[in-house]
Amino acid sequence: MKIRRSNRLVDITRYLLEHPHKLVSLKHFSENYGAAKSSISEDLSIVKKTMAEFGIGKVDTVPGASGGAFFAPRYSKANAERVIADLVELIADPSRLLPGGYVYLSDLLGRPEILREVGQLIATQYIDTDVDVIMTVETKGIPLAQSVAMYLNKPFVIVRNSSHITEGSTVSVNYVSGSSKRIKKMELSRRTLKQGANVVIIDDFLKGGGTMKGMQSLIKEFDAHLVGMNVFAEGQFDGERLVSGVTSLLKVTAGPDDSLTAQAGNFLTQVFTEEGNE
Amino acid sequence: MKIRRSNRLVDITRYLLEHPHKLVSLKHFSENYGAAKSSISEDLSIVKKTMAEFGIGKVDTVPGASGGAFFAPRYSKANAERVIADLVELIADPSRLLPGGYVYLSDLLGRPEILREVGQLIATQYIDTDVDVIMTVETKGIPLAQSVAMYLNKPFVIVRNSSHITEGSTVSVNYVSGSSKRIKKMELSRRTLKQGANVVIIDDFLKGGGTMKGMQSLIKEFDAHLVGMNVFAEGQFDGERLVSGVTSLLKVTAGPDDSLTAQAGNFLTQVFTEEGNE
Repeated sequence: MKIRRSNRLVDITRYLLEHPHKLVSLKHFSENYGAAKSSISEDLSIVKKTMAEFGIGKVDTVPGASGGAFFAPRYSKANAERVIADLVELIADPSRLLPGGYVYLSDLLGRPEILREVGQLIATQYIDTDVDVIMTVETKGIPLAQSVAMYLNKPFVIVRNSSHITEGSTVSVNYVSGSSKRIKKMELSRRTLKQGANVVIIDDFLKGGGTMKGMQSLIKEFDAHLVGMNVFAEGQFDGERLVSGVTSLLKVTAGPDDSLTAQAGNFLTQVFTEEGNE
Repeated sequence: MKIRRSNRLVDITRYLLEHPHKLVSLKHFSENYGAAKSSISEDLSIVKKTMAEFGIGKVDTVPGASGGAFFAPRYSKANAERVIADLVELIADPSRLLPGGYVYLSDLLGRPEILREVGQLIATQYIDTDVDVIMTVETKGIPLAQSVAMYLNKPFVIVRNSSHITEGSTVSVNYVSGSSKRIKKMELSRRTLKQGANVVIIDDFLKGGGTMKGMQSLIKEFDAHLVGMNVFAEGQFDGERLVSGVTSLLKVTAGPDDSLTAQAGNFLTQVFTEEGNE
């Protein structure tokens, strides 16, 4: 098959989507398709305009012989509002209410179309932040953490609740569960986190903030840096949370009569106002 | 921006990649881009040829006014061999060896570029199979299960080791850990699996097959059907495994002197010979 511009556009799009947050050289594309770098530059400018037009992501092109292209998923504010409005509708279902003010979310966080949208949404928040690794705690935070990691193209690490032989040597911390006030232990394999790494913590649900605070302690133990904390949903909590500065997509409130109301969390105002994105 | 063919090719590619294993109507694209269905058909034929040429996936186009396009990730045999050869090299590192014949894999299964490749690889096996849901058991099988689920565009469910309040009512089974011979309990939220669902089981590592067999029992409890079992790696096991018919990407063998050898598992022969894929 002779590789024309139309074929290149398809494969460049695929390649960039599979390698977000990574500078891909013009040389890579040029050699792959047997095309001049000037032609590839024109291809990239088409990809860039299209992605911007549809509110999907930004493509930065670095000019010159050593240049390349850098794709980062970025949802427009309009797309973000649509995703969050859809989620609010999905969540506000009284049958999701569980004892203790918890909310059943596992089905949503096991659905690919939701994970894709939510991953791109949270990745938008860190588009200009230096992130080295995503951290979560087993079990229900994993799908969301993985999805964000995929779109930021950074590894994710899973903090475990107890010692597992298949993790090798670990570092552990004690933490107080904010909801139940019990002292628990969490640990992370020694080889997973590098000193000085910039870490984003992801979890599914925020109540008292105890597990978030535990992960903060672990980050300190590894001499790493916390750069952000995100949850899918925050519930109501009587009293003061153990952490502040958590970004939530949704906020759910259980009523006294087993009702459940949902609304947008602080994501939209955090990401689209403070940081001045359009 | 006037939407030309070049822009359509970029956005159609993105859209199909984000909606694998789903029939997308010509109407959807036609309305989205304000283009005639005949133009969209031509676009799709370019996308189809390009994806086939680069060994990425197949695009089936359904002709006619009610037609559309169906994209399914499918790695060519050459791409599959390259991915598995790369993994063999990454795994065969004696520092990965843990007590009891286990192998440290968490770092690999937390790296987006590996999860993308392995997810597409395993999805290739089920390209012509009716799959409704992916099942795994916490914790280390989750990343792989999620990745396969993303490329098959089907939900995944996580079997838990013990009762968690945030799962609601559950169905549980006892199982014998093939390695340690201890009796354990695993459970799945009642609302996650429908009667008659076609299930693929995914896990990170296979030794005695006890957890696989436990998941098979759960599938029976839900009156669902098992259609396949995949693991990232199988280790050595003295004696007879509790399950057969598991497809592995890799096979690892620990030597008596703390050496570790890795080789391709049975994936390539299962998928590319038996099923007659090219």
